[in-house]
Amino acid sequence: MQDKPLILVTNDDGITAPGIRTLIKVMLKIGDVVVVAPDSPQSGMGHAITVSDTLYCKQEHIDKGPQKEYSTSGTPADCVKLAIHELLDRKPDLCVSGINHGSNASINVIYSGTMSAAIEAGIEGIPAIGFSFCDFAWDIDFEKLETHIETITRQALKHTMPKGVVFNVNFPKTETHFKGIKVCRQAKGNWIEKFDKRKSPYGREYYWLAGEFTNLDTGKDTDEWALANGYISIVPTQFDLTAHYYIEQLNSWNLNA
Amino acid sequence: MQDKPLILVTNDDGITAPGIRTLIKVMLKIGDVVVVAPDSPQSGMGHAITVSDTLYCKQEHIDKGPQKEYSTSGTPADCVKLAIHELLDRKPDLCVSGINHGSNASINVIYSGTMSAAIEAGIEGIPAIGFSFCDFAWDIDFEKLETHIETITRQALKHTMPKGVVFNVNFPKTETHFKGIKVCRQAKGNWIEKFDKRKSPYGREYYWLAGEFTNLDTGKDTDEWALANGYISIVPTQFDLTAHYYIEQLNSWNLNA
Repeated sequence: MQDKPLILVTNDDGITAPGIRTLIKVMLKIGDVVVVAPDSPQSGMGHAITVSDTLYCKQEHIDKGPQKEYSTSGTPADCVKLAIHELLDRKPDLCVSGINHGSNASINVIYSGTMSAAIEAGIEGIPAIGFSFCDFAWDIDFEKLETHIETITRQALKHTMPKGVVFNVNFPKTETHFKGIKVCRQAKGNWIEKFDKRKSPYGREYYWLAGEFTNLDTGKDTDEWALANGYISIVPTQFDLTAHYYIEQLNSWNLNA
Repeated sequence: MQDKPLILVTNDDGITAPGIRTLIKVMLKIGDVVVVAPDSPQSGMGHAITVSDTLYCKQEHIDKGPQKEYSTSGTPADCVKLAIHELLDRKPDLCVSGINHGSNASINVIYSGTMSAAIEAGIEGIPAIGFSFCDFAWDIDFEKLETHIETITRQALKHTMPKGVVFNVNFPKTETHFKGIKVCRQAKGNWIEKFDKRKSPYGREYYWLAGEFTNLDTGKDTDEWALANGYISIVPTQFDLTAHYYIEQLNSWNLNA
């Protein structure tokens, strides 16, 4: 690492979202900052990448400060790929994504554009953290998150994060102060979907996806438990999806019949 | 399970792709088939879901046969959600996705629309398998895959697949017969991206994502090794992304400073 770490900042709510503006502000205390973020909201994009379409990229000047900023027409994962392989002079020392407006705890990590950016950086061998706030309000006060984000980020730079692991950090919605930070596992949960069926002005039927998250996990070591009890959750998250424990048993199946 | 299993078939190459047509043909030998698939190609969609837009759904009659078919304007994950929560009368006994035109081995599982559909079914508690063929040719002969797909599917219905695990099955590109099926782990690998920079007829610069996959793993127990050596790979794949092994160490960090 050079004197000052090079920090890549991205998100999935778009480059003008209040969450990423706060994140940039905190990162400027720690290192040199380059922002590469979508030009429009990309929530629910999971780990989508743009393979069948063109990508546009534009230099931006949104807030004052020494950071360089670029918006792209792509997904969060595209932003990270474009930053690393095209826009940056050297490999960043850290990638932070967020602050997402809404939870990325439990199974939401799978659907999350915020976390897909962090995971993409992890795949490229870059330490990475996704930050999310379990509050959808656009004008929410992000200030009380700042010292915690700074602490977590400085710790991640000080320690060597293991290859293959990125962090999924979620802040609970709370009227008061956060109770502290808990290291957690991802809670088992899913969305019970309700499709809202409507008719267009032209008579064509269409649906809105309108589900409700259900926590199926009673463990007190989960991110959902931490968040429900006023703690900030941090889950070490990996992209080796192999269910290693099941390999031996699957070998006993008669697959070569 | 009733007399005949109810099998949900989906993919990410679109409902008219040759791969899904083969998969439907094989599944009709095994159970009652309902197809819910995207109306257009969705490659590289990862686990994207449609949260900011409307979803259209249309009954289709593409091939002859007893199967019911629906196309949707959504992503593969949307298709599974819509099938389970809106279109089907009962929970399917199995979901199969593919046959994808192209590899979903190694890190490709993360970007894969095919696997996102299987994973979505798994999240909903439904046994699920994604099938992919490491050959991009649209007019490739899928026939030699059929007996293997039938065997794997019948085995998955016979055994109880564990909750939280879906299968990622890849077929190698080969001139001859497949050597057999190997249970594998996901190889470590990534894409080294090269962005092809061009100018539109109107003078605006744009990029095409044009990377090359790199296998970083020398293990002989990986999907990449199996495929390179003529074997069909099957990786038990999970959606609990927690790096459980790292929780203890992360607890030693000074996060609550």
